[in-house]
Amino acid sequence: MKDIKIALLGLGTVGTGVVNILEENKLQLEKTMDARITVKHIFVKNVNKDRAINTERYHLTDDINDILNDHTLDIAIEVMGGIDTTYHYLKQLMTSGVHVITANKDLLAVHLEELETLAAEREISLKYEASVAGGIPIVNAINNGLNANGIKHFMGIFNGTSNFILSKMALEGQSFEEALAAATELGYAEADPTADVDGIDAQRKVVITSYLAFNQFMTLDDCAVEGIRNVTSTDIKLAGELGYTIKLIGQAYAENDRVEASVKPTCLPVHHQLAHVDYEYNAIYIDGSAVGDTMYYGRGAGSLATGSAVVSDLLHVIRYIDTKLHTLPPHFEIESKALDRSRHLLVIGDETVTKTFAGRTVTTGETTAVELLNVSTAVFDEVAALDDVKIYEIEGV
Amino acid sequence: MKDIKIALLGLGTVGTGVVNILEENKLQLEKTMDARITVKHIFVKNVNKDRAINTERYHLTDDINDILNDHTLDIAIEVMGGIDTTYHYLKQLMTSGVHVITANKDLLAVHLEELETLAAEREISLKYEASVAGGIPIVNAINNGLNANGIKHFMGIFNGTSNFILSKMALEGQSFEEALAAATELGYAEADPTADVDGIDAQRKVVITSYLAFNQFMTLDDCAVEGIRNVTSTDIKLAGELGYTIKLIGQAYAENDRVEASVKPTCLPVHHQLAHVDYEYNAIYIDGSAVGDTMYYGRGAGSLATGSAVVSDLLHVIRYIDTKLHTLPPHFEIESKALDRSRHLLVIGDETVTKTFAGRTVTTGETTAVELLNVSTAVFDEVAALDDVKIYEIEGV
Repeated sequence: MKDIKIALLGLGTVGTGVVNILEENKLQLEKTMDARITVKHIFVKNVNKDRAINTERYHLTDDINDILNDHTLDIAIEVMGGIDTTYHYLKQLMTSGVHVITANKDLLAVHLEELETLAAEREISLKYEASVAGGIPIVNAINNGLNANGIKHFMGIFNGTSNFILSKMALEGQSFEEALAAATELGYAEADPTADVDGIDAQRKVVITSYLAFNQFMTLDDCAVEGIRNVTSTDIKLAGELGYTIKLIGQAYAENDRVEASVKPTCLPVHHQLAHVDYEYNAIYIDGSAVGDTMYYGRGAGSLATGSAVVSDLLHVIRYIDTKLHTLPPHFEIESKALDRSRHLLVIGDETVTKTFAGRTVTTGETTAVELLNVSTAVFDEVAALDDVKIYEIEGV
Repeated sequence: MKDIKIALLGLGTVGTGVVNILEENKLQLEKTMDARITVKHIFVKNVNKDRAINTERYHLTDDINDILNDHTLDIAIEVMGGIDTTYHYLKQLMTSGVHVITANKDLLAVHLEELETLAAEREISLKYEASVAGGIPIVNAINNGLNANGIKHFMGIFNGTSNFILSKMALEGQSFEEALAAATELGYAEADPTADVDGIDAQRKVVITSYLAFNQFMTLDDCAVEGIRNVTSTDIKLAGELGYTIKLIGQAYAENDRVEASVKPTCLPVHHQLAHVDYEYNAIYIDGSAVGDTMYYGRGAGSLATGSAVVSDLLHVIRYIDTKLHTLPPHFEIESKALDRSRHLLVIGDETVTKTFAGRTVTTGETTAVELLNVSTAVFDEVAALDDVKIYEIEGV
C-alpha cells in the first residue's frame, strides 16, 4: 500500500468539499487506490476561524513554510485562490517535485504556460479539472476521451451565474436587475458580480479550454470579451420570436495557424442542445474531427461539485504517481485573430434605421430584429462598427 | 521511443474508422505518445474483398493463428463482433499478456466478468470505451472523471436507431413503420432491426454501464427490457399534451445491496435535458453523489465516432503500457430486483375503463392519458398487471 501525503492550500467552499469527499469515501478510495491518503497540513489565513468541518484531526497552519519545507509531501491541492502569491507557492512546490492539483482558473489563465512547462521539466503532474466547468469532467474528456480527435471548435456556457440571470430573464420575464438580485440571494453571485456578469470568469475558462483543445497557450487579451449587462428583455423577446435563445457563449475556432476566441452574448437556435442549458448549469459543446459533436453538461460550481473534480484529479495523480509521464503536448504556434469565416447575425435597432452593407439593405427598429445570414468577416466588421444597432452573433445553425 | 505492435480483429465499419484515424493522425499520435504504432496484422474473413481503405500496406489474414501465435504483439483491437468464437480469441490473447481493446457490447454484456477478472490476474488492460454510446467518452467519464462520486442512478438514450424512429414519430408525425423505413434507408437500422427496436442493444449497454457505475456484474436477465414497437403516435400525442416526451430509456438504480435495471419507453418532462436528445444521438445522464446531475451527449454509432473511442482507448493503453495497473474495483454483492421506490406513471387506456388502485380511481380512454404520481411499487405492480391499459413510467420530474 502506497503512503500518500497531501497538503491542502485553502479551506473555503471548495477546500471544504474536498475534505468532505475524502472523509466520506475514505475506505473506498484507499482500497481502490491501494494507498493510504493523509492530509498532513491545511494552509489557512486564520487558524481560529469556525469551520464547517471538524478540524481537530488536521494540522491547520497559517505559515506556508510548514508546507514549503515539508519534504515528505507528495501532492499539494491548491484551492486558496489568488494569483501572484499563490503562483509563487505552486512554483516552489513543483520545483521540489510536489505534484500539484489546482482549481484556480484566475491563476491558470495567466500562468498556465509556465506551470505546464515546469511540470514537464520536473516530470510531475499538474492537474486542473476543477478550473473549467466545476464538476463536469471536461478536462478529462478532452485530454483522454477525445484525444483521437482534432478539435476545430468548441463553445459553451462556462459561467453559471450569468446563465442563471439570462434564464430568469427569458423564462420568468425578470429584468436584469431582478435576476441579478435573485442570483445574489441564492449565493450564485458575489457581492461584486463583475467577474461573472462581465464575462471575465468565462474568458479565463475559454483560455484554459483553448489550451486543452488546440494545444495552444493564449493570453486573456487573445479572447475578446463582452458580458450580459447590455442584454435587455426586449432583445431576448425579439430573438425568441425568430427562434433563438440568447446565451453567454464562450467559444474558440481554430483554423490552420490561427485561433479566434471570444465570450459574448450569442443567439442559438432553440433546437440546439446548449439552448436548453438553463439556470446555474454549465455545458460545453465540442466538435471533434472523428466523433462529431458532443456535449458535456452539469453544475459548474458548488462545494461538492468542484470538490468532485479535485478528488478525481487526486485519484489520477495517485494512480500514476510513479510513472513520471507528464509531458507537454506537441503544440503549434497560433496567432489569435478573427478568422475569415462566414457568420450569421441578428441585428436589433435602437431606433428605426436603414443601412446597406455589401449590397444588402437592412432596416431595423426598436421592436424589430433582422437576421443577416452568411455574411463575410468584412461585412461583419462593417456592421459591428455601427453605433446605432445592437448585434448578436448566431451560432449553431 | 516505444515500439507498439497491434493486431486488428475485424475490418468492418468500426475497423475501417480505426485505420482511418490512425493513418490520418499518425505523426501527431506518435509524437504525443512517444511511440511508433504498427498495425502488424488485420484479421478478416475474406482477404480478397474490396475495402474502403488501401490494404496494401497491411498484412491481412484469415488465419487467426497468425495473431494468436505472434508473441511480439502488445495490443489487440477487437472490432469483429460475435460472441463465442471472439471470446475464445480474446481469452487466449489476454492469457498471453496482450492488452485488449474491444467495441463488442454483445460479447461484453455476457463475458465482462470473466474478461475483467482475467485482465486483473494478468495485470493487463481491458478497455471498451466504444462499447457504450459510441464516440461519447462515457466509460472514461465514469471511471476517471466521476470516480470521486458514488453513483446511485443513471439513465440514458443508449440506442440511436430507436431514438431516430421516436423522433421521426414525435417531430415529423410519421408512423412507426414510416420512421423505421426512413431509418433503414439512411443506414441507421439493420435489415433485421430487432436488436435496436426491441431494446436489446440498449439492454447490453445498460449491463456494461451498471458495472462501471456500481462495480456490479449483472447478467442480461437482470435488466428488464421492452422495445418501442408498441409506442403509437397516439401515445406520443397524449403524452405531449401532458408535457412529456416518450424516449427509450435505459437506466439503473442502486440502493443498498440492490439494483434495478431496465430498458423501456419512458416519459420525460419536456424541460429535461434528455427530452431534447433527438434523432440518431445518444446521451447518458448520471447522478453523482458529489457532482450532482451531469449529462454526456453525442453520436452513438458510425465509423469515425466509434473509431474515435477505440483510438482513445489505444492511446491510454500505450501511455500506461508499462504500469501493470489494471485491478478490479472493490465491488459489493448486489441482488437485482425492483426497488421499493416511489414511481410516476402515465396510464393510457385502449378503451374507456375505470380502475381503482390503493384507493385511487383512474379513468382512461382511447384518447385520454392519466398521470399517476408518487405511487408505491405495490400499486405499480397492480397497475402493470392490467391488460387493458398501457403504462409508461415517468422519470426526471
